[in-house]
Amino acid sequence: MTMNWKTVAIIGVGLIGGSIGMAIRARKVARRVVGIGRNAGSLATAKRRQAVDRVTTDIAQGVQDADLVIVCTPVDTIASISREAARHCRPGTMMTDVGSTKKAIVDQLDGNLGEVRFVGSHPIAGSEQAGPEHARADLFQGRVVVLTPTRRSAPGDVAALQRFWEDLGARTIHKSPAAHDRALASSSHLPHLVASVLAAATPSAYLPLVGTGWESTTRIAAGDSELWRQIIAHNRQNILQSLDRFIQRLSVMREALAADDQRTIQRILETGRQKRGAVGS
Amino acid sequence: MTMNWKTVAIIGVGLIGGSIGMAIRARKVARRVVGIGRNAGSLATAKRRQAVDRVTTDIAQGVQDADLVIVCTPVDTIASISREAARHCRPGTMMTDVGSTKKAIVDQLDGNLGEVRFVGSHPIAGSEQAGPEHARADLFQGRVVVLTPTRRSAPGDVAALQRFWEDLGARTIHKSPAAHDRALASSSHLPHLVASVLAAATPSAYLPLVGTGWESTTRIAAGDSELWRQIIAHNRQNILQSLDRFIQRLSVMREALAADDQRTIQRILETGRQKRGAVGS
Repeated sequence: MTMNWKTVAIIGVGLIGGSIGMAIRARKVARRVVGIGRNAGSLATAKRRQAVDRVTTDIAQGVQDADLVIVCTPVDTIASISREAARHCRPGTMMTDVGSTKKAIVDQLDGNLGEVRFVGSHPIAGSEQAGPEHARADLFQGRVVVLTPTRRSAPGDVAALQRFWEDLGARTIHKSPAAHDRALASSSHLPHLVASVLAAATPSAYLPLVGTGWESTTRIAAGDSELWRQIIAHNRQNILQSLDRFIQRLSVMREALAADDQRTIQRILETGRQKRGAVGS
Repeated sequence: MTMNWKTVAIIGVGLIGGSIGMAIRARKVARRVVGIGRNAGSLATAKRRQAVDRVTTDIAQGVQDADLVIVCTPVDTIASISREAARHCRPGTMMTDVGSTKKAIVDQLDGNLGEVRFVGSHPIAGSEQAGPEHARADLFQGRVVVLTPTRRSAPGDVAALQRFWEDLGARTIHKSPAAHDRALASSSHLPHLVASVLAAATPSAYLPLVGTGWESTTRIAAGDSELWRQIIAHNRQNILQSLDRFIQRLSVMREALAADDQRTIQRILETGRQKRGAVGS
């Protein structure tokens, strides 16, 4: 593989940013990776784990030589940090983000960064764990990355970014920012919310009696609650619609239980089994 | 460890029955394990995997020498199979089951098996997988087994059964059948139902966009839908109450989303995070 990039700057070296750095280095996708962050401990961990070649807390210094900047901060800060970083980039620098929501972010950045070329990304990868200590070079292997180009995006930029993620082992698909947010409301944000409410609703006295079922179903509820509060706030209207559909489906199950309608209960369980089986573990 | 049992008969050599056999043999808890079932393929797999010493499709023959019989069939058939097996057991034989619900089963068997001594069990272990091909000797290691003795149970029988499960690596707790069913409605049956409805409610078009979060949250929906229909039917009233409480909590989240009440959203996410964190992975 040829080195497609000279210097990649990663702003925010947590689980995702750190994993991007490790994947870039493992697959020799760039000559140099710079890690930028505010937390000296996270930067030191990223450096120690060789997720990045060098680290800095100074955004201006960190991005000045980059030909690709990837913003991996919580969704509430992506737009402002991207704008700040863009002021210090060379003309023509590519920029993307990894936010779990896209419309609010892309609306603020698309065509608004002067000579810096922004296209949004969302790698659908991660876990309930956080921080560069959990970063893994194979986090994106076989995972989907959604690119969210707009009419303003240059096709060459989109192609370059697509190649970048594919070089990291991911499969890419393209969606508009709005279509991305509608889909992710159902495929990611609603499951998180359901897992959180299910865990929160379990009486403490029954926690010693949970098995692997409860453990799986609530696993993502262990994620950082502030990061998820921001994601949910960004995509509130779509999540509200997904949640209403889910409550409606749950009410069908509730009525079937109340009526002892075994056929409907079986049908819902079987539909769930088939959809789950279509995805694999 | 001394061999506490001479012959253990396991009726139903699927994931749980097969794992009991493997654990008995790995830990030398009995001299001989007999596997009893209707499906010749499952029996052959259990034998090949050395989960049992010998197999038979004849219940009478299978249980005649047993000093412990463990009924591991779907919950709808446990009572009738236990009664049939009891007719062919020697006086004084111990019998238990591994059903995920207890009240309906124990009500039918407790004190009703003549000279056979029945105490209900529920090992809270398993997975979305089924069949002896997925059995594991360590399935019960560190897991909780609920014993459900009643006023009719002889303390010596309960102690012997507790020792049996502990010999397999499990921790045991005692609950009445009714208290067991109330607790499991929240800690196991509701999560299964929620996972199934969530998987069923995900639009097929969005399945390519699911990540590890959806995968965890819906994992148990891949389980056998007929087995779960039976479990849900057995514990319908308790599950209905748990489901109503869950829908009520979900409605609080829904109203917080509609009102953009970030504080309440954050509070629910944080409560979920703490309860999930209390359990571990």
